[in-house]
Amino acid sequence: MIQPFDDFYFMKKALQEAEFAFDKGEIPVGAVIVLNDKIIARAHNLTETLNDVTAHAEMQAFTAAADFLGGKYLKNCTLYVTLEPCQMCAGASYWTQIGRIVYGASEPERGFVNLKITLHPKTKVISGVLENKCSQILKRFFIQKRNLN
Amino acid sequence: MIQPFDDFYFMKKALQEAEFAFDKGEIPVGAVIVLNDKIIARAHNLTETLNDVTAHAEMQAFTAAADFLGGKYLKNCTLYVTLEPCQMCAGASYWTQIGRIVYGASEPERGFVNLKITLHPKTKVISGVLENKCSQILKRFFIQKRNLN
Repeated sequence: MIQPFDDFYFMKKALQEAEFAFDKGEIPVGAVIVLNDKIIARAHNLTETLNDVTAHAEMQAFTAAADFLGGKYLKNCTLYVTLEPCQMCAGASYWTQIGRIVYGASEPERGFVNLKITLHPKTKVISGVLENKCSQILKRFFIQKRNLN
Repeated sequence: MIQPFDDFYFMKKALQEAEFAFDKGEIPVGAVIVLNDKIIARAHNLTETLNDVTAHAEMQAFTAAADFLGGKYLKNCTLYVTLEPCQMCAGASYWTQIGRIVYGASEPERGFVNLKITLHPKTKVISGVLENKCSQILKRFFIQKRNLN
C-alpha cells in the first residue's frame, strides 16, 4: 500500500522551510508540525532576521500550532525538524506534551540528546530521517558563509 | 553609601510583574532585564492568555530586551526572575549569553538546577533573592485556584 504521508514526506516539507531560511542568510533549520497527516504549522529559523535567539524554527512552530489548535498542548502532534532540537526547544517541547519528535541531522554539541534534556514522558523520538539532506544544507550554508567572509 | 539599585530593588520590580500575572489568572512569575541599572524589559507569564507554553516571563523578556538593544546578545545584562527558570528558559539564556541570572524562589522539580541544564559559561547565577515573597505569591495563587475549583 502506498503511504504518501510518511515521515520522509513531512521531513521534506521541513527541508523546504530550511531552504527558505538559507535564502534569508539564516542558519538553515526548518520545522513543520503535523496532526492527522495535516501540516498545522510551518516555520524556519529567524534568529538573525528578528534579532532574537528564541526564534528557532521549533519555537515558532510550537506557537503557531497552539494558535491553530486554540489550545496549548500538542499531545497528538508530531514535530518534524531538520536538526536535533537544542535544550531550549526540547524544554519547550516538554511543556507542549508533544506526541512525537522526528529530526534529521544530529547536533552532538548543543542538541538535547547529549545534553541529557528531559523530554515529556509521552514524547516519542525518531532520529536520522533524511539525515544526509538535513546536514548537507547546513554544510552548504557554512561553506558559503566562510567563503563570503 | 546608599545603593538604591541593588538585587532586591530589581527583584521587587520582577515581583510587580508577577502580581500582574496573578491578576490575569496566570501562574504568577515575573521578570525584568536590567542593563547599567536601567530596566530594559519587563514581562510576566502569559501562557494561558496567549495559549502558548513558550510565553514564560523570561522568554518574553529576552525577546523584548534584544529588541530594545537591537542585537541578540545580552552579555552585560542581568535577568531578575521570581522563579528559578525551567530548562526551556535556561536553554534560551544560553543563547543570549546573558551576564547574570538572579532568581527568587527555587523550583526543585522543573527548574534548571536539578535538571542540570548547562548555562552559558559567562552567566553568573544568584539565587534566593526575596525568596519568601517570590514563593508566597505562587502559594497564594495555587490556594486561590484550589478554592475556586
